Amino acid sequence: MDSHPNTRPAFARWLGTTNDVTRMFLAAGRIPGLINMAGGLPAPETYPAEAVAEIARRAIAEHPGDTLGYGPIEGLPELRDALARRFSSDALHLTRENVLVTTSGMQGLDLIGKVLLEEGGIIAGQFPTYLGALDAWRPRLPQFRNLMLDQPGFDAATLFAGAQFAYTVPNFSNPTGKLVDLPTRAALVDAAHRTGTWLVEDDPYGGLHYDAPPLPRLIELSARQTARTPYDGPVLYMGTLSKEIAPGLRIGWVIAAPEMIAVLTLAKQGSDMCTSGVTQRIALGALEAGLIEQIQPAIVDLYRRRRDALCAAMTEHLADSFQWEVPSGGMFVWATARDQKLDTDLLLKRAMESGVCITPSSVFDAAGENRRAIRVNFTRNEPDQLREGVKRLATAVKAMQANRN
Amino acid sequence: MDSHPNTRPAFARWLGTTNDVTRMFLAAGRIPGLINMAGGLPAPETYPAEAVAEIARRAIAEHPGDTLGYGPIEGLPELRDALARRFSSDALHLTRENVLVTTSGMQGLDLIGKVLLEEGGIIAGQFPTYLGALDAWRPRLPQFRNLMLDQPGFDAATLFAGAQFAYTVPNFSNPTGKLVDLPTRAALVDAAHRTGTWLVEDDPYGGLHYDAPPLPRLIELSARQTARTPYDGPVLYMGTLSKEIAPGLRIGWVIAAPEMIAVLTLAKQGSDMCTSGVTQRIALGALEAGLIEQIQPAIVDLYRRRRDALCAAMTEHLADSFQWEVPSGGMFVWATARDQKLDTDLLLKRAMESGVCITPSSVFDAAGENRRAIRVNFTRNEPDQLREGVKRLATAVKAMQANRN
Repeated sequence: MDSHPNTRPAFARWLGTTNDVTRMFLAAGRIPGLINMAGGLPAPETYPAEAVAEIARRAIAEHPGDTLGYGPIEGLPELRDALARRFSSDALHLTRENVLVTTSGMQGLDLIGKVLLEEGGIIAGQFPTYLGALDAWRPRLPQFRNLMLDQPGFDAATLFAGAQFAYTVPNFSNPTGKLVDLPTRAALVDAAHRTGTWLVEDDPYGGLHYDAPPLPRLIELSARQTARTPYDGPVLYMGTLSKEIAPGLRIGWVIAAPEMIAVLTLAKQGSDMCTSGVTQRIALGALEAGLIEQIQPAIVDLYRRRRDALCAAMTEHLADSFQWEVPSGGMFVWATARDQKLDTDLLLKRAMESGVCITPSSVFDAAGENRRAIRVNFTRNEPDQLREGVKRLATAVKAMQANRN
Repeated sequence: MDSHPNTRPAFARWLGTTNDVTRMFLAAGRIPGLINMAGGLPAPETYPAEAVAEIARRAIAEHPGDTLGYGPIEGLPELRDALARRFSSDALHLTRENVLVTTSGMQGLDLIGKVLLEEGGIIAGQFPTYLGALDAWRPRLPQFRNLMLDQPGFDAATLFAGAQFAYTVPNFSNPTGKLVDLPTRAALVDAAHRTGTWLVEDDPYGGLHYDAPPLPRLIELSARQTARTPYDGPVLYMGTLSKEIAPGLRIGWVIAAPEMIAVLTLAKQGSDMCTSGVTQRIALGALEAGLIEQIQPAIVDLYRRRRDALCAAMTEHLADSFQWEVPSGGMFVWATARDQKLDTDLLLKRAMESGVCITPSSVFDAAGENRRAIRVNFTRNEPDQLREGVKRLATAVKAMQANRN
């Protein structure tokens, strides 16, 4: 008897909505000699491996119950307390009940989808939209209402009405690197308060600011309106240790009203029961030791220099074919083709033949239609590689144009 | 302006289907003096903390890229290879393509639901059914078709037809502790091959056998029918390190046909991107060091003695009111009330007043109707506590009966 694969039940429909470009650039890491400027990867030389190794050893030896047993679904109480303290301010009063520890920032997105989306539910999402958020919510086949924050007459309240939630990355957005300005932040928060819409503030890059001090968080602006203890407003603030210590810990958090934390906890129960006590205790040890504060200045310096190197090379080799703004933080330059007919999905294929990988804009559009821009990462590679990568990209652009003429 | 919680969008409907009993016994761990025989918790004294602490330190110091960076969605190649080797046999030919590393066994269940269930999809599930599986699939509001494996005339193929997948825990099932016999295993595998239905073999307890050597796995029986390399049959074999090393690692795996691993990988991409490299490298270090083989004999001895202590105490104090079979492995005794009117949801409340917590049968029934049985854990507590817990439970039963007469 054989396995009759043809008679197997159908896979869920959402699996038909993923795109080939995603798979192609995920596979790029395995090609020898290729310069990968596609991913959102930190520089591995910034990982504080020796410090984390020792924190891990002590955490497990001294807290075997916390690290090796099942823990509370919401996270270890000491870690929730530490995060509540870290993000509290004069206006923002956080307690443990405001904090859910998640197994990566991505899990936070997945859980938000689980508790707020029925199939086909509406999301008001900052456009272009973080690819990982699209991936997290795809199983619910949601409808996206695009928030074009820069457009004249942008009216958040109208766009929020009827949406299950709004999704934003105010600090150095993935993919555009854009910093949302203070008036727009205030408008988003006002709209959330007026309409009751949950407002997700995804903030993996907030610590990576190169030119100016950070702007107030959306949750901070919201707290100035409510001033309740614990905070019970409409903002869900999401953070992660991936860019500030190391992605391999897979530690993130959601800070929100207790009623939201309670339902997210129910969703987490059926997702992975609880986050690893080993990685939670490492995170707590790192926070207590001030590890982020120790290593952040060097990371910021390193990435600022790499941003400058990338932008200089782009000015030299790509200014004829692309335009961009220099980002004041984060990990990415977003460049739009001057030629309206340049399809960046096709450019990716050509670029990979030239030995460089970038991310085409289509993957940041739920409809897959935006094909005129590219996202270029500057944190993973050294300046020499960045320059060589840009040269290869310019070669690919010229080859495409020559081919068409 | 205020936060207008009344105008907030509705939470997803599935959140209304969870039950209070679950919350009550999850809270039981926080009550001082309460003897908790409800959870499926290992004995913390079995955690090899010193060994894991040293493995963790070396893993991070020697493999900073693997442990602290983003890794492949499917898991670290070396860990996938190690798992493929561990579960291969003369008939079962596994390669890396057959293996997905998951962030706990629970995540494996969540991913299976994501790739196979549309809302309201049909699951053919061994009855009573593991609570965690019900939790994992609840967001899809599935329909359950109960598999009563012991019933005369049980016809797997008829029950599988039209289901998206079948779910079983053949070794010392949670909650019943039952070992599925060889003829029934063969019948399940035959039905999966005949109907094409995916057959989930969830095996967290396979290493905890106290009286006889283990029976062949379903995936092994399936491989004897297909003999392809890599294995491409209908069984999804799920394992975890939670019971063999420590739950705090949150490391599990799914072993299945490459086409299934590929779609589960797409679902994992949007769930947590990848499992922590720290915990994956600890798992790999533990497997390479033979840690499971070193500690398993002592764990099996300890749990066998606790099982015997629990069953002896139950025979002394509960034989008039309950009946049960002594389980030959796993973590639980499943006891059914002799009195058809004894409602074990109510018994839980009474038992907690008497200072003991057990799990009522209703939570293992998707319809919440089965209210005549209890699940009693014997691995977490020492024999003296188990005996005291049983006495308290007997007191609660008597109080309920006296109250009614």
